[in-house]
Amino acid sequence: MPPIKETSTVDVLIVGAGPTGLFTALCLTRLGIDVRVIEQRIFGEAAGQADGIQSRTVEMWDSLGTGDKLRQFGKIVYQMATYDPNEQKTGIKAASKVLNVPLASARYQYELTLQAKHIEEIIRDALSEVNVHVEQPCVLSKLESLVEADYPIKASVVQCVHFDTEKLAASKFPSYAREKAASDKYLVDYVEIIRARYLIGCDGARSWVRQQCGIVMEGTIPGLTYGVIDFTPVTNFPTCHAKSLIQSPLAGMLGYIPKPNGTARLYTLLRDTVLIEALDKGSEEERARKLSQIVSNGFAPYDMRVEDITWCTTYKVTQRVASRYSHNGCIFIAGDACHTHSANAGQGANVSMADAYNLSWKLAHVIRGWASKSILDTYELERRPCSLELIEFDKDIQDILSPDSYDPEDYAKLWHRQLLFVTGLGLQYKSSLIIPEHFQDIMAGVTIGRRFPPAEIIRYLDWVPCNTLDIIGYTMKFKLLVFAGDTTQPSVMTLRADFIEELGKIPRFREIVEISVILGVKKEASATGYPHNKGSILTLFSVFIDDGINSEQQPGLVHKAFKISPDVGAAVLVRPDGHVAMVFPPSIDQVHLLNNYLSTL
Amino acid sequence: MPPIKETSTVDVLIVGAGPTGLFTALCLTRLGIDVRVIEQRIFGEAAGQADGIQSRTVEMWDSLGTGDKLRQFGKIVYQMATYDPNEQKTGIKAASKVLNVPLASARYQYELTLQAKHIEEIIRDALSEVNVHVEQPCVLSKLESLVEADYPIKASVVQCVHFDTEKLAASKFPSYAREKAASDKYLVDYVEIIRARYLIGCDGARSWVRQQCGIVMEGTIPGLTYGVIDFTPVTNFPTCHAKSLIQSPLAGMLGYIPKPNGTARLYTLLRDTVLIEALDKGSEEERARKLSQIVSNGFAPYDMRVEDITWCTTYKVTQRVASRYSHNGCIFIAGDACHTHSANAGQGANVSMADAYNLSWKLAHVIRGWASKSILDTYELERRPCSLELIEFDKDIQDILSPDSYDPEDYAKLWHRQLLFVTGLGLQYKSSLIIPEHFQDIMAGVTIGRRFPPAEIIRYLDWVPCNTLDIIGYTMKFKLLVFAGDTTQPSVMTLRADFIEELGKIPRFREIVEISVILGVKKEASATGYPHNKGSILTLFSVFIDDGINSEQQPGLVHKAFKISPDVGAAVLVRPDGHVAMVFPPSIDQVHLLNNYLSTL
Repeated sequence: MPPIKETSTVDVLIVGAGPTGLFTALCLTRLGIDVRVIEQRIFGEAAGQADGIQSRTVEMWDSLGTGDKLRQFGKIVYQMATYDPNEQKTGIKAASKVLNVPLASARYQYELTLQAKHIEEIIRDALSEVNVHVEQPCVLSKLESLVEADYPIKASVVQCVHFDTEKLAASKFPSYAREKAASDKYLVDYVEIIRARYLIGCDGARSWVRQQCGIVMEGTIPGLTYGVIDFTPVTNFPTCHAKSLIQSPLAGMLGYIPKPNGTARLYTLLRDTVLIEALDKGSEEERARKLSQIVSNGFAPYDMRVEDITWCTTYKVTQRVASRYSHNGCIFIAGDACHTHSANAGQGANVSMADAYNLSWKLAHVIRGWASKSILDTYELERRPCSLELIEFDKDIQDILSPDSYDPEDYAKLWHRQLLFVTGLGLQYKSSLIIPEHFQDIMAGVTIGRRFPPAEIIRYLDWVPCNTLDIIGYTMKFKLLVFAGDTTQPSVMTLRADFIEELGKIPRFREIVEISVILGVKKEASATGYPHNKGSILTLFSVFIDDGINSEQQPGLVHKAFKISPDVGAAVLVRPDGHVAMVFPPSIDQVHLLNNYLSTL
Repeated sequence: MPPIKETSTVDVLIVGAGPTGLFTALCLTRLGIDVRVIEQRIFGEAAGQADGIQSRTVEMWDSLGTGDKLRQFGKIVYQMATYDPNEQKTGIKAASKVLNVPLASARYQYELTLQAKHIEEIIRDALSEVNVHVEQPCVLSKLESLVEADYPIKASVVQCVHFDTEKLAASKFPSYAREKAASDKYLVDYVEIIRARYLIGCDGARSWVRQQCGIVMEGTIPGLTYGVIDFTPVTNFPTCHAKSLIQSPLAGMLGYIPKPNGTARLYTLLRDTVLIEALDKGSEEERARKLSQIVSNGFAPYDMRVEDITWCTTYKVTQRVASRYSHNGCIFIAGDACHTHSANAGQGANVSMADAYNLSWKLAHVIRGWASKSILDTYELERRPCSLELIEFDKDIQDILSPDSYDPEDYAKLWHRQLLFVTGLGLQYKSSLIIPEHFQDIMAGVTIGRRFPPAEIIRYLDWVPCNTLDIIGYTMKFKLLVFAGDTTQPSVMTLRADFIEELGKIPRFREIVEISVILGVKKEASATGYPHNKGSILTLFSVFIDDGINSEQQPGLVHKAFKISPDVGAAVLVRPDGHVAMVFPPSIDQVHLLNNYLSTL
């Protein structure tokens, strides 16, 4: 073993720089947490091929300041089309064309597809801007968690092996198993001891971190086998810009997904075991030729020429979920390291990014001393059921895809029934951080536990239109949105002013909560304003009006959509990750509810 | 005179790199025209202080790809407030608060304010990206236009004096009169002969180019005298983020304009000739002190502390318009070189940028050989009346501002009555390039001669939402928008298909016209599509649907807003600068109208 050259400390050490690890790093740095990211791949070595970004995930990217880049590099997919066998069973015919995300609660009615490398590049660029750089190639060779008196409080002592890139590249160790290379002195550049407060294993389905912690993967539901091919279509297929689900009498079930720059991905469900074996064992060239042939047949009577193939493989995923998501309270796993899914639901990296988004703010709160360590338990409590649900959903899809009864219309219907789930918009957490439904009725249009929905309001001070999602963002603070109702009624105004004054007396309120007040009045009628005197917890920037710029628009539309009474109003506490923690009436006698919540964090 | 070191040629030579010259350069480069820009100032020497960007101007910036930068650096001003004297005449009281641009035809209901240097920086950056750099400091010392057989066809032979920057900086020649420095050999670095096809004088109110051409400024309407001060307000004034018009009993008429980063500009109308003289003759410090005092008094009973003054002056503009806007058919003047206005209407650089936007595409068409030189005459024909109109408008404002009868409500009313004009949205051209109203009635919601209005539609191929203004953009081509009506009726579909086939037979149609077809149908009903076969002038990218992404929205709303019959439809020819050239029915027997138009360009 080469001599140990460095001993260093860090708040959070992230293992793996795929989409999960990078996204975790971005979340944490946005919250001001010190991170390091290590990756066993040499820079440029390809990793995953996940490429679909669902509607809720786009919102998350927005909140981290990277949404525009996503739209810039991505293909925006608004349409979903289905194709049935034609009458003569000689080819396919158009069956339906619908909106991809027909949900009123969606900010974006589309999903995005990107090249996997662009997903990583965008986050790497954003990290570089705050001087966080992925350290690669390197691996952990030893991982211990122990209690210490000084920094770290409870530490992971980690032995981190930095490789000599050139020698490693020449060594033929596969990119997914570089741990083995750690014992080859010749390849090692230097070894470093890292003391981290927390460690997050984002090191994929073969997770080394998971294995070190003795966490096992549970479940043995075998997925179906798919062929997948990335290519440039030359075609007269009419919906080559739509997500298209095709049941071909000649080639079976095909899923066509448009990608940026005129390219596409095609999934083909493989049932013929002889064919599967031939594809698996054949050369890359043979595989490409055979899959191209299936594609061409499948689109008849349309021409579909497969050109410029950039990726071509077959795969079968056994769906599994980790028995635990954490170890000793200081090691966590996220992404493929704790759940593997089939591609049927198009979830790819979306579930993994949601892991990161959920875990990061909790870690940040604990590290900053704003919350006790017990909130870290809610990571598994909130995220693990999502993976189990995803597997259930996938089973339903597999049933529908079974050869005898497959019907693309059924698939589309199942898809639409599960849209809230598939898009991430219906994700509803249940844990000690969510206070269930006893005041749900004063804001019936917003679901406790789900992410707070988007709504257009205007800022009081300058009438600039704002979206609630942008107001919430992704910061350390909880957001308290006070829908004040009709404050042109003096009695309502007095009640709200008293309420807000009382909030200011809650210990730590100013420190960990950011308040916004939304007046349910006409913008021209708001001249008298709102109490934002010196010493008040309100500033001019935290007052909004539930009205539009368009003069014909009625005021109070958001109150109405959220089913809030203009007399009663509603206060809603939103977690840093955008999920609704609790709803309560904005009156003095209910302030203790918020106080209780904050004091038990 | 130092030796002449270079002789070079260029399509268009632009003299002056203020907002007008830079904007002209950007327009021309976007159209693929070769330009050079020379400027007498040394880099960094301050020029104008124009800072307000009106609604239509923001649209122009969008079309050149620089609108986002404008929004990023600018302060977005949605509100306009007025203040009256209070009853006791001891101070002011709020009178009204309204939307700044309450126009349904506006894409943006705001105006933007920027620091003048940012306006220039944004354009300079955009020019750098296409490798156009302002050459400075340098001036023209000789200007001749003559006919030549070879390049240039009719040329401006220009003697361009490049200065030694350091020596010039030390020389004390004022930045606005560097022509005089041209005869000082010591200061000159080298002299260059430039042969340009066209030359545009954007060299400000003292325009040297204008003088060389013997063009005189006409009109002697003296403006009022204003004090103006750029500062950071420390205040409890309730609308410090709104444009605020204040009639103070203590300080007279004040105009408050919020600017980026918490700064503001304040105009104060000066009537006391003794005070004016004192301000003019006093030191900069005294001037600042006196104007600050006026401001503080004027806002009583609100506190208004004037801090961090960055600019402070008094000025009076005599409003004048040039007798001609061009010389010998190859030299043009634009911006302050051909019109000077008071600041009352807040037009600043807006009118000048509109000059550039109007002139550039015409020059580009002539240079590319797409149009005869005679279209260049329409520059003066279209733009000069705007300046005259602006002076008329200003007279009305001055009448309202007269000391005896001033009423801020009257001012606000005049402002709103003239909103279409002030925002640039009502600008209506009349010339041989505009075919007047004989088919206006089939598209009564769109005015021939005005810029084509914004409207949200979706793209046929992928349902991505698009705005008509983005479809029109600013390119060399005329845009033909065919509102096809209800093409689910087979008869309508046939008529339109025939019409489009016939269009393809017009000589040069494909070369200089870009067609878009907008179907007035429900998006789900558009499955059969539209003829875009090989050889057709239509591509999949040029077909749109008059429907929204929102499933509850009715289709055909844009047809309805523009008052187009679903049976008759309407074809509208839009010029490269977005103005409506002609409207005609989309049927075979009217195709000759378009043919005539294009053949007489």
